[in-house]
Amino acid sequence: MEKPAETAFPIHELLRQRWSPRAFREQAVEPDKVTGLFEAAQWAASCFNEQPWYFIVATRDKTAAFAQMLSCLREGNQEWAKRAPVLILTLAHSTFTRTGQTNPHAWHDIGLAVGNLVVQATASGLSVHQMAGILPDRIREVYEVPNGYEPVTGLAVGYRGDPASLSEDLRERELAKRTRKSLHDFVFSGRWGRSAPFTQSLR
Amino acid sequence: MEKPAETAFPIHELLRQRWSPRAFREQAVEPDKVTGLFEAAQWAASCFNEQPWYFIVATRDKTAAFAQMLSCLREGNQEWAKRAPVLILTLAHSTFTRTGQTNPHAWHDIGLAVGNLVVQATASGLSVHQMAGILPDRIREVYEVPNGYEPVTGLAVGYRGDPASLSEDLRERELAKRTRKSLHDFVFSGRWGRSAPFTQSLR
Repeated sequence: MEKPAETAFPIHELLRQRWSPRAFREQAVEPDKVTGLFEAAQWAASCFNEQPWYFIVATRDKTAAFAQMLSCLREGNQEWAKRAPVLILTLAHSTFTRTGQTNPHAWHDIGLAVGNLVVQATASGLSVHQMAGILPDRIREVYEVPNGYEPVTGLAVGYRGDPASLSEDLRERELAKRTRKSLHDFVFSGRWGRSAPFTQSLR
Repeated sequence: MEKPAETAFPIHELLRQRWSPRAFREQAVEPDKVTGLFEAAQWAASCFNEQPWYFIVATRDKTAAFAQMLSCLREGNQEWAKRAPVLILTLAHSTFTRTGQTNPHAWHDIGLAVGNLVVQATASGLSVHQMAGILPDRIREVYEVPNGYEPVTGLAVGYRGDPASLSEDLRERELAKRTRKSLHDFVFSGRWGRSAPFTQSLR
């Protein structure tokens, strides 16, 4: 199933096709494609080129390691993520390596890196479902994460599957229309709340 | 000047070509391309589909509005950003609209949206230079930003220009080699610090 964005204005096909499914095929992801995801991630920009992103990865063929990572997700996510062939945890280094001071952009820069990862995934025919619903304390314990590093999100990665494989509740969400605000609600010029002129024609 | 990433592993051309220049041509950016940047940004994923991203935009042809935004950047950035045809400020809504509770993923999700914006820019022949060096208090004052919204970054957008237009110091940085960590330094499996097996071949 595809579910392209219904855009008010044309955008690049890789962005239009991106979407977060819960139904995945059991088919494994080719190792080269997995490597490509992280290579793509690391070429994102970051504050002072700190590259504060860290990843822990588990593939479904390694049963014990996969179960361990699955147990670091909230139950609602475990229900469907258990069928994804690849799970990834993202973590942020919360201080600058050079100075030891807090890096306020660490989480922002994880977002940039994951943005790249998702584009690479889409270009490889894969889908990514990002999850805020993770168990940070459990992740710290299970993976012996040192102080100064923070779990940020979980990612389920794989080839999109059949929504019929989901429970009724999840299937409904899988098929629901994708919605976004209008540009004039969040693109301003001159003053907060004053819609940028070019967004007016899109009302 | 182009400066593609020297990757250890192939990645999509739009990610490989992305790069943050300081030299911009004076040429204006077509309004449709500017609109496309924000349309792309908004189709990023976000925690609970909160879409916590807000943007304020100024183009160089509107002299007063552009000078106002330029004054919200740190001096070191003003020096070169003054020649970019488009400046953008990004802001995050720091609480969930529905519950009023803190959204810990707000900055992360700005990163995802800007990641999309940058891909769209690259696809449009444009470059984006992201800046952490902004003046948040001045932004709040100048644009009357309400409580609960936080300035995150500034973006300079335009067509790449001639490095010769930069001061000697900036020109050196413009021409410097792009560097990244190796995958085995930040992609782990099983336990923190244990490089994922597939990263070993890339040493």
